[in-house]
Amino acid sequence: MVEKVAFAGRILMLGFGSVGQCTLPVIPRHFDMPVERISVIDADDHEAQFAPFEAMGMRYLRVCLTPENLEGMLAQHAGPGDLIINLTAGVDAISIMDWCQHRGVLYVDTSLEPWAELYEDASLPPWKRTHYESHEVTRARARSHWRPDGPTCIVTHGANPGMVNHFVKEALLTIAERTGTQPASSPKTRAEWAALAQGTGTKVIHIAERDTQRSSIAKHPDEFVNTWSVLGYWGEAYYPAELGWGSHEKMLPPKAQHFTHGPGNCIYMLQPGGQTLVRSWVPDGGPIYGFVISHSESVTLSDYFTAYDNGRPVYRPTVHYAYHPTTDAIASLRELMMRDWQPVEQERIMQDDIVDGMDELGVLLMGHGLGAYWYGSQLSIQEAREIIPGQNATAVQVVAGVISAAVWAARNPRRGYCEPEALPHDEILAIARPYLGPMVGVESDWTPLKDRTTMFPEPWLDRTDPWQFSNFLLRT
Amino acid sequence: MVEKVAFAGRILMLGFGSVGQCTLPVIPRHFDMPVERISVIDADDHEAQFAPFEAMGMRYLRVCLTPENLEGMLAQHAGPGDLIINLTAGVDAISIMDWCQHRGVLYVDTSLEPWAELYEDASLPPWKRTHYESHEVTRARARSHWRPDGPTCIVTHGANPGMVNHFVKEALLTIAERTGTQPASSPKTRAEWAALAQGTGTKVIHIAERDTQRSSIAKHPDEFVNTWSVLGYWGEAYYPAELGWGSHEKMLPPKAQHFTHGPGNCIYMLQPGGQTLVRSWVPDGGPIYGFVISHSESVTLSDYFTAYDNGRPVYRPTVHYAYHPTTDAIASLRELMMRDWQPVEQERIMQDDIVDGMDELGVLLMGHGLGAYWYGSQLSIQEAREIIPGQNATAVQVVAGVISAAVWAARNPRRGYCEPEALPHDEILAIARPYLGPMVGVESDWTPLKDRTTMFPEPWLDRTDPWQFSNFLLRT
Ligand SMILES: NC(=O)c1ccc[n+]([C@@H]2O[C@H](COP(=O)([O-])OP(=O)(O)OC[C@H]3O[C@@H](n4cnc5c(N)ncnc54)[C@H](O)[C@@H]3O)[C@@H](O)[C@H]2O)c1
Ligand SMILES: NC(=O)c1ccc[n+]([C@@H]2O[C@H](COP(=O)([O-])OP(=O)(O)OC[C@H]3O[C@@H](n4cnc5c(N)ncnc54)[C@H](O)[C@@H]3O)[C@@H](O)[C@H]2O)c1
Repeated sequence: MVEKVAFAGRILMLGFGSVGQCTLPVIPRHFDMPVERISVIDADDHEAQFAPFEAMGMRYLRVCLTPENLEGMLAQHAGPGDLIINLTAGVDAISIMDWCQHRGVLYVDTSLEPWAELYEDASLPPWKRTHYESHEVTRARARSHWRPDGPTCIVTHGANPGMVNHFVKEALLTIAERTGTQPASSPKTRAEWAALAQGTGTKVIHIAERDTQRSSIAKHPDEFVNTWSVLGYWGEAYYPAELGWGSHEKMLPPKAQHFTHGPGNCIYMLQPGGQTLVRSWVPDGGPIYGFVISHSESVTLSDYFTAYDNGRPVYRPTVHYAYHPTTDAIASLRELMMRDWQPVEQERIMQDDIVDGMDELGVLLMGHGLGAYWYGSQLSIQEAREIIPGQNATAVQVVAGVISAAVWAARNPRRGYCEPEALPHDEILAIARPYLGPMVGVESDWTPLKDRTTMFPEPWLDRTDPWQFSNFLLRT
Repeated sequence: MVEKVAFAGRILMLGFGSVGQCTLPVIPRHFDMPVERISVIDADDHEAQFAPFEAMGMRYLRVCLTPENLEGMLAQHAGPGDLIINLTAGVDAISIMDWCQHRGVLYVDTSLEPWAELYEDASLPPWKRTHYESHEVTRARARSHWRPDGPTCIVTHGANPGMVNHFVKEALLTIAERTGTQPASSPKTRAEWAALAQGTGTKVIHIAERDTQRSSIAKHPDEFVNTWSVLGYWGEAYYPAELGWGSHEKMLPPKAQHFTHGPGNCIYMLQPGGQTLVRSWVPDGGPIYGFVISHSESVTLSDYFTAYDNGRPVYRPTVHYAYHPTTDAIASLRELMMRDWQPVEQERIMQDDIVDGMDELGVLLMGHGLGAYWYGSQLSIQEAREIIPGQNATAVQVVAGVISAAVWAARNPRRGYCEPEALPHDEILAIARPYLGPMVGVESDWTPLKDRTTMFPEPWLDRTDPWQFSNFLLRT
């Protein structure tokens, strides 16, 4: 039995898209409160999907949030002691957080979203479209305007970013144990976690995901199909490829740029993530090509696991996403790029039309004594439907992150601004577990050089160290 | 009414795969002969598909052709005055042609295939896996071993190569007429055709194809799906990207290599065609990304349209394939590459499961007075099924090439070795026409620089000449 958290406030959910619709039915399983105190704001007409919740007594407000009406709308439906769960795509997260911090409202989101217009603003230079920059700006705001013991405000806590950040800690503990590199006591501080990672010799961490969910509806060439937000996916894919840059790396990839401000733990490339592929590996899906799509966890994990000596960084893993979406989503993105990123009208999020497949989402840690170790969730569409009827595996994994953050925030209401690494990973994983399907840890002898065809010369390969980024990146 | 050719010989068809099955029902429409004189050899068990032809009196021989049994098998079923139509994938074409030349047997094929083992022979250097090399070797053989007035032997005469080679001539005539650059009399010799092309100012010719046929069966991740030969497609995709290299080009692309023997009209790249993308355009499908897959027409067209001054080449168009296969075929190829080109067991050629779509296959001529001009076939699956029941659009377009070559060979039996450019394009197109659906000629203001996003710097772009290869190639 799930232990419910007694909650005296109201809950306001912003956004009732693929993630919102999957989250809402789960809230009453974890929150002990009258459901009449739960409201949802969304710009779109989702009446049909909301009908069962309306019947339970929840409220749906069809409003398009704008810079002008945002504060007014929030003030009407939330106040001190309440919780805002932000699951919109294209509503500025910092504005909402700012408001929450000053009104004593708890806050949870899954992505540091800007206003949607930003995606299309061609005048913004590439470095301003990075998650490094989003986190720099948010952290600066937190330092200067928010109190450390302010209302708990958990950012980027979905599946990835979110769950996967905790998977890394769990995987590191396993690797340390199996390779005999574990410290005397289990790590508590950031520095201790970084020391643990350094001790294992982990050089590279991929968020390695393959989504094999497939639909009974043949995708039309003018249709954009995905298993989650279409806008979110293409927005991210258009961002520059971005990665946490490890201390073992010998050579920057082509088109790479450093950041000239902040901790400097990341690099970005002067090409979109949707055109940047790396080799990676997942246990069931095997070797994959994954997109190096800009993601928060590349920033926060590589920062968190940096070890310092006298203030100088001496160890850091390379961290980035290696995303193999569904084949329909890959085709949709390819078609979008063919049209020079002009969106199509017709969008579809795969749902009841899914015939089979699973979202295999985990972290692949490499370069340590075990070679490669993948740890993560293998959630099939069948099991996802048992957990939350009518939903797909991708959304259910995101809900794992949302609900665990929401519950933790309710239990720990005065922790201020929190990135996922700041939360206790075991406590979070315990809440999230029922939404992740089989959690699997697999050792592998895979490397990016394994079975590699030698037909064409690849002078950039480094055969002395398989874990160099130059061995992962597809260069054409 | 089709005028049938009276044929006194036998017809031996090698290969009863997707193209063979589509060709066989068409032969009696064009050949006035007893169908009992038609036989088919194929290694596989295609009994079910062959049953209707068996009933008509044709013969099916299930034999796997090998270097050892090839001549014996051919001798059993063909002799002077007969016709061999070679539609196998992975049986050495030169061996069959050699035999035909010395036995007085007519010959038609759609691809200069080597023995299948060659695809997998890792010891062959990349330049040996080019169509430039296949044509060099075949031409050398023709010059030294075959007579100019030997039995007609038409190579690479399917849709592309094949039909598209003739489309180029037709398109050039239209462009010349509309831009007032036509010569006094219509071109007859190779040199006159080259002069015509030069006169129009055509710089680049893409074989620009988008196949939007889609299936009602959701592709399984471990399944290879295509609209024609799976082996043929991945074999070609693994070949180095290859292109006829135009005289207007200022800079070789990265990884490019020249050939050090022969006419030198082509270059190849040290990467597979399946990983080499260019921007291109088709009228219905719009701007596309196409694979620069090595193909015969890049070699023969760029050679044929080279203009010489005192033996020195002074004009040549850039010519290459820009292939956008079905999305299932794109996904299949991506998965193949993820597995480092290890094939899967399960293959499927889309057929009755196709719900809609068309194969839009034509030539895109660029850089002349009209800007860009596409000419080609827009054959929908519905129309393809009306033309040849049970077949897909891709196969029917290939049949256009096969049947027109076969009929022409029967009418002109002593023309020796012929590449498509050697045949009279108007006569061939007249025979082929019923299999091509709507033939469309469209002018366009498209260029590879049109609507191009400027988010990321692309220092290799040449804004002074949109038709430079550096503007087409996707560089990541
Ligand atoms: N961390 C993760 O693992 C993860 C995974 C999936 C999605 N996400 C993020 O979660 C968010 C939601 O994803 P989704 O798949 O549900 O997206 P979605 O596009 O399906 O839904 C977003 C919803 O927000 C609403 N919305 C957008 N702008 C609005 C506005 N101005 N006012 C009111 N409503 C507005 C839309 O109407 C839509 O219903 C996105 O930011 C996405 O990037 C995170
Ligand atoms: N020029 C064009 O437009 C064009 C288009 C499509 C295909 N093609 C070419 O046409 C050929 C046939 O294509 P397809 O799509 O029908 O291919 P397919 O793979 O569907 O059929 C090839 C057939 O050849 C048979 N075969 C292979 N090796 C054999 C052997 N050793 N002995 C006897 N039979 C053997 C196979 O059993 C199979 O039935 C290929 O060479 C392909 O590259 C050309």
